[in-house]
Amino acid sequence: MQDNLRTVNVGLIGLGTVGGGVARTILSHHDRYLDAYNIDLQIARACGLVWEQAEAVGITPEQFTSDWHDVVSDENVDIVVELIGGEHPAAEIYEAAFAAGKHVVTANKALLGRHVEAFARTAREHGVQLKCEASCGGGIPIVSTLERDLVGNEILTIAGILNGTTNYILSRMEAEGADYADVLADAQAKGYAEADPSADVDGFDAASKTAILASIGFSSRVTTDDVYQQGIRTITAEDISVAHDLGYTIKLLGIARNTAEGVDVRVHPTMIPLDHQLAKVSGAMNAVYVVGDAVGETMFYGAGAGSFPTASAVVGDILTLSEQISRGVAPLPESEPFSRNKPIRSMDELETKYYIRLRVADRVGALAEAVDVFAKHDISISLINQLEDGNSDSNACSVIFLTHKALEKNVQDAAAALAASDCVSEVANVLRIEDVDAWTDGVMAN
Amino acid sequence: MQDNLRTVNVGLIGLGTVGGGVARTILSHHDRYLDAYNIDLQIARACGLVWEQAEAVGITPEQFTSDWHDVVSDENVDIVVELIGGEHPAAEIYEAAFAAGKHVVTANKALLGRHVEAFARTAREHGVQLKCEASCGGGIPIVSTLERDLVGNEILTIAGILNGTTNYILSRMEAEGADYADVLADAQAKGYAEADPSADVDGFDAASKTAILASIGFSSRVTTDDVYQQGIRTITAEDISVAHDLGYTIKLLGIARNTAEGVDVRVHPTMIPLDHQLAKVSGAMNAVYVVGDAVGETMFYGAGAGSFPTASAVVGDILTLSEQISRGVAPLPESEPFSRNKPIRSMDELETKYYIRLRVADRVGALAEAVDVFAKHDISISLINQLEDGNSDSNACSVIFLTHKALEKNVQDAAAALAASDCVSEVANVLRIEDVDAWTDGVMAN
Repeated sequence: MQDNLRTVNVGLIGLGTVGGGVARTILSHHDRYLDAYNIDLQIARACGLVWEQAEAVGITPEQFTSDWHDVVSDENVDIVVELIGGEHPAAEIYEAAFAAGKHVVTANKALLGRHVEAFARTAREHGVQLKCEASCGGGIPIVSTLERDLVGNEILTIAGILNGTTNYILSRMEAEGADYADVLADAQAKGYAEADPSADVDGFDAASKTAILASIGFSSRVTTDDVYQQGIRTITAEDISVAHDLGYTIKLLGIARNTAEGVDVRVHPTMIPLDHQLAKVSGAMNAVYVVGDAVGETMFYGAGAGSFPTASAVVGDILTLSEQISRGVAPLPESEPFSRNKPIRSMDELETKYYIRLRVADRVGALAEAVDVFAKHDISISLINQLEDGNSDSNACSVIFLTHKALEKNVQDAAAALAASDCVSEVANVLRIEDVDAWTDGVMAN
Repeated sequence: MQDNLRTVNVGLIGLGTVGGGVARTILSHHDRYLDAYNIDLQIARACGLVWEQAEAVGITPEQFTSDWHDVVSDENVDIVVELIGGEHPAAEIYEAAFAAGKHVVTANKALLGRHVEAFARTAREHGVQLKCEASCGGGIPIVSTLERDLVGNEILTIAGILNGTTNYILSRMEAEGADYADVLADAQAKGYAEADPSADVDGFDAASKTAILASIGFSSRVTTDDVYQQGIRTITAEDISVAHDLGYTIKLLGIARNTAEGVDVRVHPTMIPLDHQLAKVSGAMNAVYVVGDAVGETMFYGAGAGSFPTASAVVGDILTLSEQISRGVAPLPESEPFSRNKPIRSMDELETKYYIRLRVADRVGALAEAVDVFAKHDISISLINQLEDGNSDSNACSVIFLTHKALEKNVQDAAAALAASDCVSEVANVLRIEDVDAWTDGVMAN
């Protein structure tokens, strides 16, 4: 098939952890791609901060530049691969690449979480494609699974462990009974968590990915700003232990549900049953649970970060585009992307069971007062568990309340009322117990 | 985008569990496919055994035929969807469809397990495609994941729970401590197992799927006949219980490894560590573990059978072809399929740890004789566990031997020698303890 042989030139922008992995993967797998696709995949230009960074991953002086404009304006470049992250200059790179008729492959969740729809539209107007498999779930092929393999389904639920750092922290807290601060410090020392861990532990990273997956899975516009966010800073070893005794584990999930009332989309620490498939995903691994109306329950598991796993996803996108380029096909989606315009459901309307941990004044009547506040907010309590306090010189104690199904707005109002009440020294945690059975509502019966 | 609207006509052959599910999925999702792909997907012809079967799934008299030739010769049909299973007349249907310039979508593991390479080649010669996502793992998008998403990787290992019936039986045996025969009978009564369970419990079904996945994942010809097969009939509640105490579960795995010495491909009951991700897949669910040199460890989980899950995979293939048809693209793979011609490694050369259960005469010296036989075959024993026998009037007892790493040929020779020896009344089981750490040999270090 040598007559079909086609050279495809990529221009890499960013040669850090991911970009360096992509460069090394392309260089070491050149013959495999010739084998699998009859594609002679070449790195035409590569933009990094400094030459030493480029040299270390096998880039030649002729390929190297430190100015991204050189990559985008190079007429040999068929595909621009943006791996610098962040909103700028990534947005300018896309605009310039599309205008020059070049496809873009990216792992940029921050930018696409806010603007995937707009960029997909611009790409389409220029007759090129934007591909972003690596933006969600690292090496897990979840974007293409939603875009193509499961397109025969109406996607009902997407629920993912989308951030490896927080899953690593929660897994270690569960395994060791350790406290959040101690595990975080150790994770930072080992390089598993950033010095400023906010993007991970406060849920921003997972929210961007949830927005992208919801947009693609539901063919409707969902942005990071639409995603309710709550991080894991308030989770204690005690919460995890109590949850475990109740038959649950606590995972930071990005959840997107395609309901009749609109798209329900949120990131928060979630109590899920210990025997749920997502509960069994531990350490820094990621997994995305997808429910389609025909296929039912599926899960896709793998490394959510790391140099080569992310490179696997980036190179998969590059090769898919390369195959289309080599056939001379305009690889356009046939229909307007994200055209469904589903409304976003207000978080206030969420209805589920809750786990609420209060620090209450250790005095007669405190429990009764708390119960009374719940009742006034139409919240029915299913279980109260007053914990023995390890800290014996404290004059407060922890009490766990589990609720029957209640309305989010009522629970938040009750929490505010309790926080202001004399009997409660702290509303330490309000966690949602996810109704995982509802995830499969709408699956066709076999 | 109404100007791009294109009607794609499928011809269904087979309206049983899977075919009926496909018909119902296409009919109920027509507007969604218009939305997602701008494809007006129509069932032009549908071939079933009897009219009542067709009517029940929404087929009209105009669409119905009971002769598959009517479907293949219908000039309106773009894609022939074969869902009757078995080798004939499926093979004749493919040949006729390809000759008529029609694509084929199928779920037929029996036929493709033996001949996927030959049919892919014939399809290519006629400028059409053969797609078989539903042939492996039911609704799990594993074929396309290997074909496209992970193509940036050298695939190192594929290990799957590919048969729901056997996983259901083993899971219930483990959960209930029940015996094989009892669980099988109950599964048959509930319709989870066939009256003749051989294709499932003897590993033929899993072997076909393993051959297909190995062929695609390694781009090399592997047929069902290349796959070593051992089923689950000999597994007892005692084996499962002892395995559990040793930190293992027993799963019927289809394993394909891409080694320097050739393709190692086999289906057998396998002891894997309880904390391995595949060990956590229970009931009738399927899962495929894939290790790529860049992406590392991944797993894909979902329903391996059933009307609508399988339909999800079939319709995914139909829509992928439809998108290509609507663009007027010849959807040919650029390179010769399965061209690598890797050798198949002889099972004799497998080297792993073993679990061997003997029934020995309860007399002094029997154990020593058995150990001696192992030693003569160069097999080093790591643990001997003489089990207390519930059956007290028996004059034999069960003894478990665990080995250090040993050569398959030596273990089989030793088992034959033991079976012929006076001291052993039965070699009740020879099970492999899989070296799951070796599955990731060759993964690139981050």
